[in-house]
Amino acid sequence: MSLTISIDAMGGDFGPKVTVPASLECLKNNPDLTLILVGDSTILNQHLAQHQSTTHERLVIQHASQQVEMHESPAKALRNKKDSSMRVAINLVHEGRADACVSAGNTGALMAIARFVLKMIPGIDRPAIISTLPSIYGHTHVLDLGANVDCSEEHLYQFAVMGNELVKAVENIENPKIGLLNIGEEDVKGNEQVKAAAKLLENSALNYIGYVEGNSLNAGNIKVDLIVCDGFVGNVALKSIEGAAKMISTLLKESFSKSIFTKLAGLIAYPVLKSFKDRIDPRLYNGASFLGLRGLVIKSHGGADALAFKTAIQLAELEVKQDVIRKIGEQVEKSLNLRKSA
Amino acid sequence: MSLTISIDAMGGDFGPKVTVPASLECLKNNPDLTLILVGDSTILNQHLAQHQSTTHERLVIQHASQQVEMHESPAKALRNKKDSSMRVAINLVHEGRADACVSAGNTGALMAIARFVLKMIPGIDRPAIISTLPSIYGHTHVLDLGANVDCSEEHLYQFAVMGNELVKAVENIENPKIGLLNIGEEDVKGNEQVKAAAKLLENSALNYIGYVEGNSLNAGNIKVDLIVCDGFVGNVALKSIEGAAKMISTLLKESFSKSIFTKLAGLIAYPVLKSFKDRIDPRLYNGASFLGLRGLVIKSHGGADALAFKTAIQLAELEVKQDVIRKIGEQVEKSLNLRKSA
Repeated sequence: MSLTISIDAMGGDFGPKVTVPASLECLKNNPDLTLILVGDSTILNQHLAQHQSTTHERLVIQHASQQVEMHESPAKALRNKKDSSMRVAINLVHEGRADACVSAGNTGALMAIARFVLKMIPGIDRPAIISTLPSIYGHTHVLDLGANVDCSEEHLYQFAVMGNELVKAVENIENPKIGLLNIGEEDVKGNEQVKAAAKLLENSALNYIGYVEGNSLNAGNIKVDLIVCDGFVGNVALKSIEGAAKMISTLLKESFSKSIFTKLAGLIAYPVLKSFKDRIDPRLYNGASFLGLRGLVIKSHGGADALAFKTAIQLAELEVKQDVIRKIGEQVEKSLNLRKSA
Repeated sequence: MSLTISIDAMGGDFGPKVTVPASLECLKNNPDLTLILVGDSTILNQHLAQHQSTTHERLVIQHASQQVEMHESPAKALRNKKDSSMRVAINLVHEGRADACVSAGNTGALMAIARFVLKMIPGIDRPAIISTLPSIYGHTHVLDLGANVDCSEEHLYQFAVMGNELVKAVENIENPKIGLLNIGEEDVKGNEQVKAAAKLLENSALNYIGYVEGNSLNAGNIKVDLIVCDGFVGNVALKSIEGAAKMISTLLKESFSKSIFTKLAGLIAYPVLKSFKDRIDPRLYNGASFLGLRGLVIKSHGGADALAFKTAIQLAELEVKQDVIRKIGEQVEKSLNLRKSA
């Protein structure tokens, strides 16, 4: 099946330096893919020329005269940047000219513009950010990762319904195991929202397995496919894991740099350490999907390099192929009707 | 200076099997230390006999006929277990016969009993749990780690005041750098409680450096001495870090076990990997202090082995020597008067 993805080519810490080579790599790998690079056409053509790719039959340049800055306020970006690469890339999804949009730009602005342009799926109150973390069982999907700082039980329930459809589609499994992030596995633990959300999930058709703790994100006692939490907690957990991984890799490097002997040991162990590092390379987990919108928007890490940005584009390709947005919309409507008639 | 610590010798997953050898080790290391082992005297004497230590001039056995189970409800433990090793060990602190108490038992029960027996420091609404995490800068103190699931800005402020005194005392530094855990460093980020707590901290005499993100627990861009958060978020972050460390060590072991060549590389790299592992050994970070009570209670991890439990006892020794509880009490009174007169 042919598919078209719009790229906010100016977004992220590195802009076209990263987005252009990543896009060319994706086009090479998928003959069904068309990409629309959105941004300053002069700059984009210069970057394409560097890669000897001024013309490509499945690459389209869409000029946009503005750019959303990484620390610009979402409200200002929404009001003043109507011809930004970010806004135009999202417009293309809204107009049906692209099946999805990928941006490494300012998360708040991307969320605000996507919400304004694409609108919410009826029945969903708030969009949520879902991404994947490596785990000893393969990987775990987690939402919300920062779109919502205070969530009611109803919001958490909606996140579970949407996340469930996404995991079913991209993992090709029937009944994803869903856990609710809490500070203990006993019923008495947790805050009021989490306890109330647990009741909603227990009474739903979802494969809800109960409370899980923070360690379940990477290495719990059992495999969980989807973990649901509010955006404040999810974001802190995600960044805490990033910090732990950074500390461990820093100290590991230090240990191997202490003396000529440890350096030699490091040289011998290098291929093993490299294969280990590749297994949890955060670049291979780059890309978070905004759920709840009437269109597919994928957020790449702002500091992504070409490999990481390629991963985000490939995530968009997978979710388009699996028709994730349509499936979520249908399921939300069904769940709402079920609850109305209950 | 001589000091006495009461040990809930029956608490934790392993009871006297762990608490007895850890206690004997601490007595050996500190000639000023007296320990009161609280629990079933017959069982404790059996364990002491195994270590050829039936008599020790600085070891006292205090019989207690009951035991709080690891999954017993705190309310039931409080009501029905008046002669439990946990309760008696805390009573000894209340009666002034011990300067601190260490327990690896059920956290909820320990908190409920400690609060009931010892009472709160006037001016503090809720006790908080503080512990230490390894970081690329040495280590970071964090509170609250799970005692409070919903915190107002005032609670977060009180945690900062108490944590500041503890860090000053045990690290011997003048003005600990204090960060508030949030999902971004910009002023607009975060939930209402965190934003309001930031205002209180900015207007205080504390060395408040602003918002920090989850990665600052182990590896932020700058060293932070104390990170303040509500107990739900703190507990999830702590367990997420535990999970990340477990995943990394599991995958590292897997990588070195793949073939005869990787095993050989592992053998050569073993001393380096061992020294690295020792640096972040969680057993060397065992022990969390309950702050806000009129007496010192240290909670050890339930699954602690003898080395880990020894670390928790040593933490109690340090906090007694540094007179942490008195200093917190004085500071709380001072801060309250300051705020009343402001």
